[in-house]
Amino acid sequence: MSNAGGQSQPPDQGFRDAMRRLAGSVTVVTVAHNGERHGTTATAVTSLSMAPPSLLVCFNRDSRLHGLLSTAESFCVNLLHTENVAVSKLFSSPVSSAERFASGTWHDDASGGPYLEGAQSSIQCAKEQQIDYGSHTIFIGRVLQVRNREEISPLIYCNGGYARAAVLSGDKK
Amino acid sequence: MSNAGGQSQPPDQGFRDAMRRLAGSVTVVTVAHNGERHGTTATAVTSLSMAPPSLLVCFNRDSRLHGLLSTAESFCVNLLHTENVAVSKLFSSPVSSAERFASGTWHDDASGGPYLEGAQSSIQCAKEQQIDYGSHTIFIGRVLQVRNREEISPLIYCNGGYARAAVLSGDKK
Repeated sequence: MSNAGGQSQPPDQGFRDAMRRLAGSVTVVTVAHNGERHGTTATAVTSLSMAPPSLLVCFNRDSRLHGLLSTAESFCVNLLHTENVAVSKLFSSPVSSAERFASGTWHDDASGGPYLEGAQSSIQCAKEQQIDYGSHTIFIGRVLQVRNREEISPLIYCNGGYARAAVLSGDKK
Repeated sequence: MSNAGGQSQPPDQGFRDAMRRLAGSVTVVTVAHNGERHGTTATAVTSLSMAPPSLLVCFNRDSRLHGLLSTAESFCVNLLHTENVAVSKLFSSPVSSAERFASGTWHDDASGGPYLEGAQSSIQCAKEQQIDYGSHTIFIGRVLQVRNREEISPLIYCNGGYARAAVLSGDKK
C-alpha cells in the first residue's frame, strides 16, 4: 500500500497530487458589472463563520473574474447540483461571458450576482474583505440572501473529474 | 421542484441549509505542542495558491485547537480516506487529545504536526498568516511537505453524514 505513512514528496508536485485528492463542491461565482453578467467556476470555496454568516472564495489573480471581484460590492456563489454539469463545463471553458450564461436559466438579482435556477444553492454575498496571498486573493463574503434547492445532490470535483456524493453505510469504520 | 429559482431565505437559516449542501473533504488538523499531540476534524479547508503551494483552514475561536494554532509555527492537514471514518468520529467527539490519537497509526514529524498513516494525504504546513473574521479565524499554511496515498477515495462530509465520491458518467449533461 502506497500511503501517507510512506515517502514524503517535495511541496510543489506533492501538493498538486494532494489537491486531486481533495473533494469539493463545484460552484459558479457570478458578478454583475455595468449591466453585464460575468462568472466562472470555482472549487476553492468554504464556509467561514456563522456569526455573521459568511464564506470565502479564492481566485487566481490571473483569472478573468479576479479584477471584477476586486471592485465588486457583491457577488453570488452558486453551488452546483449534479444536474448542472453542462453549466460547470461551460463556465470553465474559454468562451465569452455572454456565451457562458446561455446554458441554464439565470436570473438577475438586485442584491448581487446572477443566480442559476435549479442550482443546489445560490448565496448572495456582500464583499467584506480581500486578502492577497501568493498568486491568489481570498475574497470574504457576508451572506445576504440564500436560495436552496430541496433535493440534496451537490456536484463534486475530485481527481480531475465530476462526482456525486454516495452515502457511506452508517456503521462503516 | 423546490429549487434555487424559488423563494429566498434569510441569511442565518438559509446559510445553514446551504452549508449542508456543500460537500467537502474531511480533514484532521494536528499540532504538536510541548511534546503533546493535538488535533480536531475540520471541513473548512481549501487550496489557496500554487505559488507558493499553500492552503487555508478556518477554525471557530471557541474550538479547542484555535488557541494552539494561534501560537503554532506549523500544523498538519490530514485529508482522510474513506477507510478513516473511525478516526473522523473520534476527532470530532468530546474525548481528550490522548484518546483521539489512540485510533489509527500516527507518526510525529519534526516539520509539523502528527500525520496519520493511511490518510488520503498529509500536508505539513508552516503557518504564514492568520486573519480573524466574525466568530472564526482563517489560518494560512505554506506547504512544506506532502505524503499522498496512491488510491484516491477521499472521505466526504455532506448533508450531515459521510460519503464517498462516485464518479459521474463522462457524457452526463
